Amino acid sequence: MQYSPGLEGIIVKESKICLIDVENSKIYYRGYDIEELADKSTFEETAYLLIYGQLPRASELDAFKERLASLRRPPEHVVKLLGLLPKSAEPIDVLRTAVSAMGMGRNLSDRSPEAELERGLEVIASMPFIAANWDRTRRGLEIADPQAEGHAEYFLRALKGDASPRQIKAMDVMLIIYAEHGMNNSAFTAVTVASTLSDMYSVISAAIASLKGPLHGGANIDAAKMIEEVGEPGRVQRWVDEALAAGKRIPGFGHRLYKRGPDPRLRVLRRLARELAEEAGDYKYYEIAERLEEYVHSRLSHKGIYANTDLYAAVIFKYLGLPTDLNLPAFAMSRAAGWVAHAVEYRRNNRLIRPTERYIGPVGLRYIPLEARG
Amino acid sequence: MQYSPGLEGIIVKESKICLIDVENSKIYYRGYDIEELADKSTFEETAYLLIYGQLPRASELDAFKERLASLRRPPEHVVKLLGLLPKSAEPIDVLRTAVSAMGMGRNLSDRSPEAELERGLEVIASMPFIAANWDRTRRGLEIADPQAEGHAEYFLRALKGDASPRQIKAMDVMLIIYAEHGMNNSAFTAVTVASTLSDMYSVISAAIASLKGPLHGGANIDAAKMIEEVGEPGRVQRWVDEALAAGKRIPGFGHRLYKRGPDPRLRVLRRLARELAEEAGDYKYYEIAERLEEYVHSRLSHKGIYANTDLYAAVIFKYLGLPTDLNLPAFAMSRAAGWVAHAVEYRRNNRLIRPTERYIGPVGLRYIPLEARG
Repeated sequence: MQYSPGLEGIIVKESKICLIDVENSKIYYRGYDIEELADKSTFEETAYLLIYGQLPRASELDAFKERLASLRRPPEHVVKLLGLLPKSAEPIDVLRTAVSAMGMGRNLSDRSPEAELERGLEVIASMPFIAANWDRTRRGLEIADPQAEGHAEYFLRALKGDASPRQIKAMDVMLIIYAEHGMNNSAFTAVTVASTLSDMYSVISAAIASLKGPLHGGANIDAAKMIEEVGEPGRVQRWVDEALAAGKRIPGFGHRLYKRGPDPRLRVLRRLARELAEEAGDYKYYEIAERLEEYVHSRLSHKGIYANTDLYAAVIFKYLGLPTDLNLPAFAMSRAAGWVAHAVEYRRNNRLIRPTERYIGPVGLRYIPLEARG
Repeated sequence: MQYSPGLEGIIVKESKICLIDVENSKIYYRGYDIEELADKSTFEETAYLLIYGQLPRASELDAFKERLASLRRPPEHVVKLLGLLPKSAEPIDVLRTAVSAMGMGRNLSDRSPEAELERGLEVIASMPFIAANWDRTRRGLEIADPQAEGHAEYFLRALKGDASPRQIKAMDVMLIIYAEHGMNNSAFTAVTVASTLSDMYSVISAAIASLKGPLHGGANIDAAKMIEEVGEPGRVQRWVDEALAAGKRIPGFGHRLYKRGPDPRLRVLRRLARELAEEAGDYKYYEIAERLEEYVHSRLSHKGIYANTDLYAAVIFKYLGLPTDLNLPAFAMSRAAGWVAHAVEYRRNNRLIRPTERYIGPVGLRYIPLEARG
């Protein structure tokens, strides 16, 4: 038997969903380059592609968008839930809890692929409502459920009331490029839970639990804090020098897969950030990120440490005017498409996931009565 | 790279928690035979053993029990949550959602092993409150928070008002022998989420999501339904013959690990079931299970199919007078001790879990504009 800490290099499934081509700095969803998707597609079309395996026809896309729109408002007990949670709750915890509660009141005994896929769509559709309305609730505002063309517009309008076309496009592109990234921890958690044939609400709430971890999606909160702390482009060098001298990791840098060059998604995010800076007429955050990228690369790229997507995602969130802690729910809103795709794909040829462990403790100890233990 | 469907035979960690010795039909927790623990220990002592690695001294056990007792009632927003959920919600979904909500309103930034362990204890302690009070809530009863010596007594008293010493002992033994079972899917889910450094509420809610699956803990609901359906000991043979002729799996039978003989926990559970039958003066359910065991073994043991623990757990639940669908939350109440032990152990030498997948789809497809897709 093979001992593989972290399961690195162990193939757990065959997949037709996502290819991460590190050598050529490319990511493909179902065979399509994500930079082309970022340019030409929408989140809805991309989610359809990931889940069903091919680009939709016009009529299929229309039906899919209508389905999502009709499912955006979650069941009433989930809406009420938002009202009774402590205002200091982290948005990602609210999202996990709300998704966990979504299946209540339904008959979950139908475990067919079709029923499960429908549950997955329901969760994907309702996440922007939950995330945005949690932020409204904690600010003392009423629930909002605006009309909107798609996910990105809905999220920004529910959250802020309105948003510019450029902001909506930026949000949409973020949703596209975060929608899927192979067998990362949260997608693997989704597959692991799905392999027990538990329902899709369980699957996605477990994936959100994983995404929260600071070694996974949670890292992006630290990147946002860093941008805030640095404050001015001119302070970048000093901030980095001090952090490195203190032996700290620099948030927004480093990734297990990308050790020979930056993540291909960075090109897209950098451009988005610059466009938003331009629209705002304020380049400060963009420049902080750009200088961080440049300076940290000069110091650490020989160690295989490059900027990761958290760096520019944090900047984009700043320009969109979103609270830092909504970054994670937005990530989950996007990645849910990949989670559903993986769970559905894995179950077509399902095998319960149950690794093993090597026992290195004692055996055959004699029980000593409590009185005799001192 | 190795392709290992289901990760069977892949060692994901070294562990000192549990040894499953299939050859000799023994299970050890931290080196202690669980049959001896079932005889002489309590759930609290066993949970301490699993989590801290050794049997407690008297003063340590007292402090541990007091700590659990003080944490039984969850935060008030969790208690309120029970009041607004749909009455038809499955108890395991309520438990997962309530655990997911438990950390809200706290500062979760302290990620030290001590803080995480404390969160784990809090979840373990509050599960009997949540499970029992959900059942009360759906029956229109008020919240109960009784005084009790330990977990088992608390659960039965909160649920039913009162219970006999033999019933409390049976419940306690059930909690002991279900508390841990190596790298099963839910413990592995806990470890996978824990490896991202997500918090313990996330870890345990994800493990509950896994436990629900019908290929994991969820199987026990089918076993309970079978006992009900069979109805009389005299109908066993015909029921089994018909089920096998129809190509159905028999609930309560079969386990990936136990293919050369029955699960060692069965001896303990069979005895408990008989004692409860004796106290009730009604052997019907016990006899149904015994005859099922005998007859299914005569038909299927050559295929490596033996009774599993679900068979007698279902019977014990019947004698305890508990609703079938509380079987799963009771399982979770017990197994949470193992989940916490694994999460804590894994993080001592943490490595992010991220397996890989083999891409077998197309690459380099050209995006076709929506209008051109027909």
